[in-house]
This record gives sequence, structure tokens and C-alpha cells, in this order.
Amino acid sequence: MTDAPRSANVVWHDTGTPRDARWSVLGGHGATVWLTGLSGSGKSTVAVELLGHLTRAGVAAYSLDGDNLRHGLNGDLGFTADDRTENVRRVGEVSRLFADAGVVALVPLISPYRAGRDHARSLHEAAGLPFLEVFVDTPIEVCEQRDPKGLYAQARAGKLTGFTGIDDPYEAPLHAELVLPGSEISPGEGAVAVADLLVEHGVLS
Amino acid sequence: MTDAPRSANVVWHDTGTPRDARWSVLGGHGATVWLTGLSGSGKSTVAVELLGHLTRAGVAAYSLDGDNLRHGLNGDLGFTADDRTENVRRVGEVSRLFADAGVVALVPLISPYRAGRDHARSLHEAAGLPFLEVFVDTPIEVCEQRDPKGLYAQARAGKLTGFTGIDDPYEAPLHAELVLPGSEISPGEGAVAVADLLVEHGVLS
Repeated sequence: MTDAPRSANVVWHDTGTPRDARWSVLGGHGATVWLTGLSGSGKSTVAVELLGHLTRAGVAAYSLDGDNLRHGLNGDLGFTADDRTENVRRVGEVSRLFADAGVVALVPLISPYRAGRDHARSLHEAAGLPFLEVFVDTPIEVCEQRDPKGLYAQARAGKLTGFTGIDDPYEAPLHAELVLPGSEISPGEGAVAVADLLVEHGVLS
Repeated sequence: MTDAPRSANVVWHDTGTPRDARWSVLGGHGATVWLTGLSGSGKSTVAVELLGHLTRAGVAAYSLDGDNLRHGLNGDLGFTADDRTENVRRVGEVSRLFADAGVVALVPLISPYRAGRDHARSLHEAAGLPFLEVFVDTPIEVCEQRDPKGLYAQARAGKLTGFTGIDDPYEAPLHAELVLPGSEISPGEGAVAVADLLVEHGVLS
């Protein structure tokens, strides 16, 4: 997961306009809110509420939904460990670009491996950009009961393999900026908690 | 270059906040300005001028410089035909996300193959987003004389292979929205011409 380009004949171009000038156009701070958790934990629904909340508050925000990106940028990737790693790597890079552009990037993405999330964090930190990891901590029993996409049932029936929490590991965050108990709070309450976190970190005022 | 996801167990999530609500926060229209041309043609310098111009005008804009992306998102790719195709595919997808977010995405990228650029255009058109192809049409003799990165010299000496215009084709656009004669105008004049194009297409008012 190096970021050195594969070819030596690539130079860095200064885009000529400093970040603070670009950010002032958008009236705020860029940042990435990375929502990790099991399938069915409620990441995407929290992101939906949060996007609405931020937009109504006049904050430039955009949702880089993991499933939606698999229809486009990551449409060439499957669910092997290597492909999951590459999926998370790309989303980490794209969210960093959005944050650098001055947008609050919302990333609801299972991102089961700690190394992948830590890499995304390191990309942001190296660029001086806030990276806020939010663990949507919903017990697997609750996720499996919800099973909004019918995937747990398929995984239990052996029709899906490599499914996070069933036959592929989910490595829970050790140092998330926020843990949302997904079975105890509503998506709207989760969104408010994340917005408070953004205030704490100086992204929102 | 299909956009169907490789795995069937991926569903589309409605992000819940319509585009016009998100765009109104940024005060404008998203769009992609795709600057194609030979190495040394002046794409990046036009993009630098344009980013400054748009930022000063209060327009949310961001440069997805092809070389810079090769330090990050596309750092795993080289310059084979397949890797170039994948490079252009990914930048097309990312620029579409930026345009959808309400940002004017500037993409200075050699993008030598017509099919790759047309694919990027089709992604935008399918999403109802403006895609403005700007051909920075600088004669190869001029590019080679400028040779800002010393790459033409290396290619002529056989130290670089697959170099666009030397031993790899550049397929000039047939229907670019704008052709900039890169040896006859300054980067600032090019930027003004692109800004006028953005007004014509209703992206700027």
C-alpha cells in the first residue's frame, strides 16, 4: 500500500491555488468521516441522515457510499481479501481528495480490516486533513436479524463466501473517534453525535 | 469498461439528499473540464490558471491532475495500454463524483485514447452532468522542444517506451467542446477561454 508511483517519470504539479483559498470558497473545512461496521449495522442510514443534516446547515458534504462506488470506480473489484484491500485503498484516496477539496466526505464502508482503515487515516494525516473514524457498533445478531439485503441468510446458506462476520473477520477499531451503539440509537441520533464530533474537531463551527 | 458491479450482492443506496440541495450549498453547478493533449502541451498550466481564476471568482473547483493522482489513487498503475486505460477509467469515475458533488473538476490528463475519453464522457452524460472536453492542441515539435520533464529526450533515446506521440498513439479528439492552440496562446488566455465555455454551458453565470 505504498503511495510512490509505479513509474519514475511522474512529477508532482503544484496546482497553484493554496488549500485555504479553495476552502474559503466552500465556507468551511474539508474532512473525512469514515463509518465502519458490519453489513446491516446502520452505516449508510447514519450517512444519509448526516448528509441531510450537513446540507441543511450549509456545509458542503458528499457521501462516498461503498456500495455505490462498487457500481463505478470499484466496479472491477470483488470481495476477495485482496480486492477488499484495494477497494478500501481507493476509497481512502478518493475521500482524501474530497477532504482536500474542502468537502466533508462521508464514507459508509464495511472496511473490515484495521490495516486498511489505518492506511486511509495515514493518508489524511500526512496531508493535514481530519480523519474521523466512527465505529457503528451493532451486534452481529441485530445486523443478522435486520439483514436488509438478505446477505446474512445467503452467507449462512453457504451461497456467499467471504462474508464479513460470518466467514471473514471484522476487526473492530481500537481508537475510533466515536463509537455509535447502533442497536440503541436511531440514525438521526447517530448523525447528531457525528455532527457534534465535527464541531469538537473544528470542522464545523 | 462496464459499470456493472462485479458482485451481484451490491445494491444502490439512495443518499437521501437530492443533487440540487447539495449544489445549492456550493452555490453553483458541478461539471468536469477534461483537458487532453500531449505531454508538454500545457494542460496542467492551463488547469493551474483556471483553478486560480475559478477560485477567485468564488467557484468551487478542484484539480484532479493526472500526474498527481499517480502518486495516490493510481500509484499502482504504469504506462502499458491496459494501465493507461484503467488510469483514465478511474479518473473519469472520480471526476464524475466531484461533478456530482457540485465541484468543477479540472482534469489535465494526456488520456491519449479516444475510447477512454468517450467513456468518461458517457459516465457524465448518463448522470446528467456537463463534460467539457478541451483539446490542448500543441504541435509535438513544440512539446518536444519544451520537454519540461525531459521525457521526450528519454523517449528518443529509447530509455522510455510507450511514450505518447513517439511510440504510442495520441488520438486527437473529433468533437472537443474547445480546441486551444497551445503554441499560440498563454495559459491565462486558455483559462479565460475555458471559463467562457463554462458560461456558455450554463455551469458559470
